[in-house]
Amino acid sequence: MNEFELIEQYFLSNKTNRQRAARITAVGNGDDCTVLAHLEGRLAISTDTVVHGRHVPTSSPAAWLASRGLGSSVSDLVAMGARPLGFTLALTMPHVSQGWLKGFSDALFRAADLYDCALLGGDVTRGPLTASFTVFGELPAAGRLLTRDSAQCGDRIWVSGALGAAGGALALFDRKLSPHDSDYRSRLQLISAYASPNLPIDLGLQLQSDAQVHSAIDISDGLLADLAHIAKASRVDIHLDSKAVPVAPALFDIYSPDQALLYALSGGDDYQLGFTAASGWTIGDGSATPIGEAVDGQGRVFVDGRPVGEWFDALSSRLPAGVPLSEGYQHFG
Amino acid sequence: MNEFELIEQYFLSNKTNRQRAARITAVGNGDDCTVLAHLEGRLAISTDTVVHGRHVPTSSPAAWLASRGLGSSVSDLVAMGARPLGFTLALTMPHVSQGWLKGFSDALFRAADLYDCALLGGDVTRGPLTASFTVFGELPAAGRLLTRDSAQCGDRIWVSGALGAAGGALALFDRKLSPHDSDYRSRLQLISAYASPNLPIDLGLQLQSDAQVHSAIDISDGLLADLAHIAKASRVDIHLDSKAVPVAPALFDIYSPDQALLYALSGGDDYQLGFTAASGWTIGDGSATPIGEAVDGQGRVFVDGRPVGEWFDALSSRLPAGVPLSEGYQHFG
Repeated sequence: MNEFELIEQYFLSNKTNRQRAARITAVGNGDDCTVLAHLEGRLAISTDTVVHGRHVPTSSPAAWLASRGLGSSVSDLVAMGARPLGFTLALTMPHVSQGWLKGFSDALFRAADLYDCALLGGDVTRGPLTASFTVFGELPAAGRLLTRDSAQCGDRIWVSGALGAAGGALALFDRKLSPHDSDYRSRLQLISAYASPNLPIDLGLQLQSDAQVHSAIDISDGLLADLAHIAKASRVDIHLDSKAVPVAPALFDIYSPDQALLYALSGGDDYQLGFTAASGWTIGDGSATPIGEAVDGQGRVFVDGRPVGEWFDALSSRLPAGVPLSEGYQHFG
Repeated sequence: MNEFELIEQYFLSNKTNRQRAARITAVGNGDDCTVLAHLEGRLAISTDTVVHGRHVPTSSPAAWLASRGLGSSVSDLVAMGARPLGFTLALTMPHVSQGWLKGFSDALFRAADLYDCALLGGDVTRGPLTASFTVFGELPAAGRLLTRDSAQCGDRIWVSGALGAAGGALALFDRKLSPHDSDYRSRLQLISAYASPNLPIDLGLQLQSDAQVHSAIDISDGLLADLAHIAKASRVDIHLDSKAVPVAPALFDIYSPDQALLYALSGGDDYQLGFTAASGWTIGDGSATPIGEAVDGQGRVFVDGRPVGEWFDALSSRLPAGVPLSEGYQHFG
């Protein structure tokens, strides 16, 4: 099976995707470029790479490289309140395995359906297993953009959904999973949250058009690390109330409250939204929770009144040995 | 050096690029997405991956991954007559080497200058050495697009520049290079053509707006393979005159005429333009050469009146043993 046959069978033959792509492109697949047509407004673009064995565990099924890769990329669009349009995929793999490709492309198109985002083109090459996604999202032609650098003193800090599931799932990968375990269902719940991120797309669109919402970021590195990006870019201090942070309930069936809190605050990979809004702002549907406030300062984060490092030391002294600690990725990874 | 410091030092600090990017984007770097502003017309998009040791030789300097990666990607824009705007980069590397990164980013920005194309964002991850480029180019809002499927019977076949330098360069990598060799300068010429593709951007723009030009493709897989794409997509037969094909002159200092022709017809990686135009069409500046014609048929390619496979067998029987033969990449690579 050569490159062209492979692309035809696993990527071009999906009818739903062809229709979705046709709505926004001016040429069918097969030329040197895809062409986005009828663009109205501005175009948000983000690129992310998923390296097998680094960003997903070595034992991951093919589906995870697709669903987590597309999910984490589209999450960047959501953080800026852009409506997902489409994406290109650069897939590098060591050899052609039809079973692997079927698992990958099935999951890819499920995720594309979930995010209403069309595969527009790409490249398939031979080499170590990695997938790079470049995603495109539509933004209104005019008006402000939802960025990290516009938090204001007095803003409340909000976070969407619940946090920690992905971090809690990652810690489970080395353990055997048996239906006879009492926490079997909770474990499956965490792993499925990790495998297929459920992005708050509608919330992002709503926040983008709401002038009382001042700044936003997606929670990819971990709540504390990502809020630190907002604090630094906006030159404010952020104070968090750890008891207010929504923790994924399934974590408590498996971990101690301290460890559950650790995953929620520093685990990363949840792809919820962190944002700041004027103090009087609220949201009726419970899709986000207030967890702190921004005050005059120099870009620092405090938890329960203590500098984040000090608070972490106190938490770590209460955890069993062997639990990995981080304040989010200081990553080159 | 963490990811953020590395990105700052090697990618964000380039002033020329910051200015070039600022002209087309609505937010500065540092947010979850880059935002293309003031879009007029349609947007051409293409994605390409360069795997170290596969698409460039293992012994390649860092610069080649950058210059060939960006060059081969922008070449796809050129083939559709799009004006290069910008690109994102997904760079995966096994460890942080400051010398390597300096060589890579210097070459990247030299190529970005050459193509007037701004680095808009990207992702740096740890893993096996690969670079994926997603490039963006501007096309007029209305009018036809220059594609592969519109060659007409009676069209003449044209190719820009001269072919074979890249293929001839690749065959030299295993040989020692000494200034005392009589063909030293010719070898350097081929290697430098390979290292830094000189794309016919202006010609692409001109062809796109010329209604007498019916179809185009970039010569990436090899002239015969790429013209076969046009023949198949347009449902015509293509007849080539091998003596008309412009061969890079330096090849004749190193190789026999037959071997030079082999690289020109099947070597690939030259990134010139192949295109078809109405029989009366011509170009005054010598930037392209007529090499054959399209006739009623079923998507086949003939060379000097013989089916391409038969012609290849005859050529190969005249070559010394050990010269690699291909009709272009039937690639998964």
